Amino acid sequence: MDYYSNQITQLMEELGKLPGIGPKSAGRLAFHIINMPQDQVKKLSDTIINAKENVHYCKECCTLTDQEICPICASTKRDHSTIMVVENTRDLIAYEKTGKYEGVYHVLHGAISPMLGIGPDDIRLKELIARLQGDVKELIIATNSSLEGETTAMYISKLVKPTGIKVSKIASGVPVGGDLEYIDEVTLLRALEGRTEI
Amino acid sequence: MDYYSNQITQLMEELGKLPGIGPKSAGRLAFHIINMPQDQVKKLSDTIINAKENVHYCKECCTLTDQEICPICASTKRDHSTIMVVENTRDLIAYEKTGKYEGVYHVLHGAISPMLGIGPDDIRLKELIARLQGDVKELIIATNSSLEGETTAMYISKLVKPTGIKVSKIASGVPVGGDLEYIDEVTLLRALEGRTEI
Repeated sequence: MDYYSNQITQLMEELGKLPGIGPKSAGRLAFHIINMPQDQVKKLSDTIINAKENVHYCKECCTLTDQEICPICASTKRDHSTIMVVENTRDLIAYEKTGKYEGVYHVLHGAISPMLGIGPDDIRLKELIARLQGDVKELIIATNSSLEGETTAMYISKLVKPTGIKVSKIASGVPVGGDLEYIDEVTLLRALEGRTEI
Repeated sequence: MDYYSNQITQLMEELGKLPGIGPKSAGRLAFHIINMPQDQVKKLSDTIINAKENVHYCKECCTLTDQEICPICASTKRDHSTIMVVENTRDLIAYEKTGKYEGVYHVLHGAISPMLGIGPDDIRLKELIARLQGDVKELIIATNSSLEGETTAMYISKLVKPTGIKVSKIASGVPVGGDLEYIDEVTLLRALEGRTEI
């Protein structure tokens, strides 16, 4: 495409590398950016660089933060003896938004996947094991209920159980408000297996 | 939301200002950018700044370009006596992609809209009128078939006709491959009005 000038094409290519941005969106975004006031463009560009430079893993739980220890790990109000294990920071935030979980987290940054060649050493498992030396009473595994998530949950469970620390896993089942008719069979069976007395 | 660190929140806010990027997409993009290699992030940021700094309006047709005169206006192979008037650079590119139009363009960067307070002086009309002093035989108006596009087309037509230059407008009608059943009534009526003998 030499319809565009070189600089526009380059901008479209860079934007098009981002997830969920197809060629059409990349074009729309590129033209929008070119028409934005100079100071807003500078701010966008600076924010990108700053976030990349200053955001790193929390030394405690490995979530993304711009401090050495993230606000959750630094909080004295949280129960540091309960650790919820999640695959990534977005999953952590999903639980934080419920406002009901009072423990702390551990972010793995991925899940074990033999298919993709991701082994236990490729995710933040060593850091989790190191934390178990402290005063930990329960490990709540909240990996996704995908094949990779389940494999990871099983792996952690086998690793941790001998230490005597309680290991639990969040429930699988029918989403609240979900219509049974539209729910897949595996979920329905999980919901049945996980039934509780009322 | 203080679930995120400050820098991540800022990046999400900046990305969320872009068109078509909602809060969820902004979050996904922000985490993707933070996980990108340093040099790729630098490249993205630099490309944004470069495009903004170096892309401006072509001195001839007002399209976005990083040269003084865009490649189309600079080409000796194009018919400079036929000017197609479009609302923006993306519309120009849509016609360029057909590969069949041999004239040049004029990009208005908008359309007249009394509703939004956009008058003839707010779009690149003066520059178009100035070009008509040269050797121009035909002006093809290809503004969108929206209220604003039609208003603009009418305005230009009234302005230019007294000069004796031929003014035409691209046809409205049923899109090729379009099923009549699903086409709105206004378009159907336009197609009827614009019928040609076969």
